[in-house]
Amino acid sequence: MRLIKYGEAGKEQIGVHIGGKNYDVSAFGGDYDESFFAENGLARLEEFVKANEGELIELPADVRLGAPFARPSKIVCIGLNYRDHAEETGAKIPEEPIIFMKSTTALIGPNDEVMIPRNSVKTDWEVEFCIVIGKKASYVEESEALDYVAGYVLHNDVSEREYQLERGGTWDKGKGCDTFAPMGPFMTTADEIPDINKVALWLKVNDKVYQNGNTSNLIFKVPALVSYVSQFMTLLPGDVISTGTPAGVGLGFNPAIYLKPGDVMELGADYLGVQRQTVVAYERK
Amino acid sequence: MRLIKYGEAGKEQIGVHIGGKNYDVSAFGGDYDESFFAENGLARLEEFVKANEGELIELPADVRLGAPFARPSKIVCIGLNYRDHAEETGAKIPEEPIIFMKSTTALIGPNDEVMIPRNSVKTDWEVEFCIVIGKKASYVEESEALDYVAGYVLHNDVSEREYQLERGGTWDKGKGCDTFAPMGPFMTTADEIPDINKVALWLKVNDKVYQNGNTSNLIFKVPALVSYVSQFMTLLPGDVISTGTPAGVGLGFNPAIYLKPGDVMELGADYLGVQRQTVVAYERK
Repeated sequence: MRLIKYGEAGKEQIGVHIGGKNYDVSAFGGDYDESFFAENGLARLEEFVKANEGELIELPADVRLGAPFARPSKIVCIGLNYRDHAEETGAKIPEEPIIFMKSTTALIGPNDEVMIPRNSVKTDWEVEFCIVIGKKASYVEESEALDYVAGYVLHNDVSEREYQLERGGTWDKGKGCDTFAPMGPFMTTADEIPDINKVALWLKVNDKVYQNGNTSNLIFKVPALVSYVSQFMTLLPGDVISTGTPAGVGLGFNPAIYLKPGDVMELGADYLGVQRQTVVAYERK
Repeated sequence: MRLIKYGEAGKEQIGVHIGGKNYDVSAFGGDYDESFFAENGLARLEEFVKANEGELIELPADVRLGAPFARPSKIVCIGLNYRDHAEETGAKIPEEPIIFMKSTTALIGPNDEVMIPRNSVKTDWEVEFCIVIGKKASYVEESEALDYVAGYVLHNDVSEREYQLERGGTWDKGKGCDTFAPMGPFMTTADEIPDINKVALWLKVNDKVYQNGNTSNLIFKVPALVSYVSQFMTLLPGDVISTGTPAGVGLGFNPAIYLKPGDVMELGADYLGVQRQTVVAYERK
C-alpha cells in the first residue's frame, strides 16, 4: 500500500496511491498520525480500500501532495552513513551512528518549493531513504527491529552547511529551516519492498545527476538504526528516521556547489517515487 | 496565571495553580497545546477562571502533576549559556548560542521518577529556566521577541554525559532518554514575572546544594534566544526553549559525580515552583 496526503498545505486530506493514480480515502477518517499507526491503521485502511474498490474517487493528476503523514513527534537523522559521502565531506567513517534531529516544522510536500533561508549562501541537497516507525520502540533488539517499521519514504534532507558546520553547536541548526524536509510523494508500506538493502536512490539538479546511491552501501542498515536510536530515545508511531545520504552533495565539490533561486531538484528512489522542487529565495510569509 | 496538568500519566486533565493550591479547569475544554496558545487560550482561560471564581474544584494536595502543557512540537535547548557552567565543563564561551534538540518523548511531570538509562553510568542534572512560545515565530527581531512568549517553566535538563559527549554525533544522543525532561510544576505566564533577568534557580541532590544560579548571568538572554532560534527554525505555539544551566552539574566535579538509584533531586526557581525527583534504575516498561 502507498499512502498519500493531498490538498492545500495545512489542510491535507488522506489518500492512497494505486497503479500510478491517487485516490481519496478521507471517508476512512482521521489522519496518518500516531494513533493511526499505533491502532493498526494500516490493516484497517487496507480493508477499507478493498471494501471500496472501484468506488474510490480518483484525484486530478496535478493535485498538490503534502508529506504523506501527519507531523511526527520527531525526525531523527543519521549522519555520514554512506562511506562515499563521509569521504567527500572529509569526515572519518563513524564507529557508531551519528544522530541529529530535524525540526518537524521543516516538513513539506514532495513537490513544494524549497526556500533558501534569509542570508543563506550554502543551501545543499541530500537524497535519503527514510524509515517510518509503526509502533512504540524503546530498547528494541536488532533482530526484532523490522517489526517496528510501518514503511519507508523518500526525503530531501535539505541542509544549510554554514549553519550546520560553522555556526557553533550541533548540526540541528542547519537542518530544520522551513521547507528543508520535503517528504513523499507516498509512504510505501514495508511489505511492498522486497529487499530494503537494494534500493537505488538518485538526485539531479537542473537535469544533471549529482547523487546516485543504493541502500546496499549503508554503513548502518535499517534494523541496526532502529535498534540503535531506540537505545537513546523512544520512537513513537509515525516518527521518521532518515538513514543518511550517499555521495554527491554540493559540499563535496571543489569548489562547493550550492543552490540558488530557480534551481530545480529532482530526486527519486526505487519503490518510493519521485520528488521535484523548485528553489526560491527567502520571502517573509 | 499558573497552568498545571494533573492526573494519571498520559491522561492528564488541565488545571490552574492559585494561591498555592491546584484547581481543575477541565470544563474549559481542550488541552494546553498548539491551538490553545495560538487561539488566544491564555486570555480565554483567564476569563473562564474569573467567571468561575469560588466554584473551581480544588485538587488534593498530593495529586500527581504532569508537565504543564501538551507535548510540544519541539524542545530546543541552549548549551553553555552561563559563563560559570561553560568554564566548569572546560568549554570555550560560545560566540553565538549553541542549539541542540531534546526528544519530546523525554517529557514527564515535575515529581515523576527519573530513570537512569540501561547501562548508563553518567546521568547528570541541569536546572534550567525555559521559555514557552505563545505564537508562531519565524525571523523574529530581538526587540519584538517577548511578544512571542507565553510564559516560563522550570526544567531539569537531565543529561547522559557519555551519550552526549563520547558516542559520536551531536549532543541530542544524551538528552532525549525517557524521563530526561521533567517540567513544571506549573507554567507561569509572562506577566507574573517582574524581571526575567532576575530569577534565581537552584538544584540539590540528596539535600546538598549543587547549583545556585540566576538568569542575570545568562550569556544570551531571553529575547536574544527567541530571535536567534527563530532564524534557524520556526517556533510553534507551545514549543519550549530551555535557556541553559548554571554551574554545578556533576560533570564539573573532579572526579565527576553522577546520579545513582535512590538519589533525590530537588530544584526550583523564583516564580516557577519546585520539582522533586527520585532516581531509579532502568526498568523495561
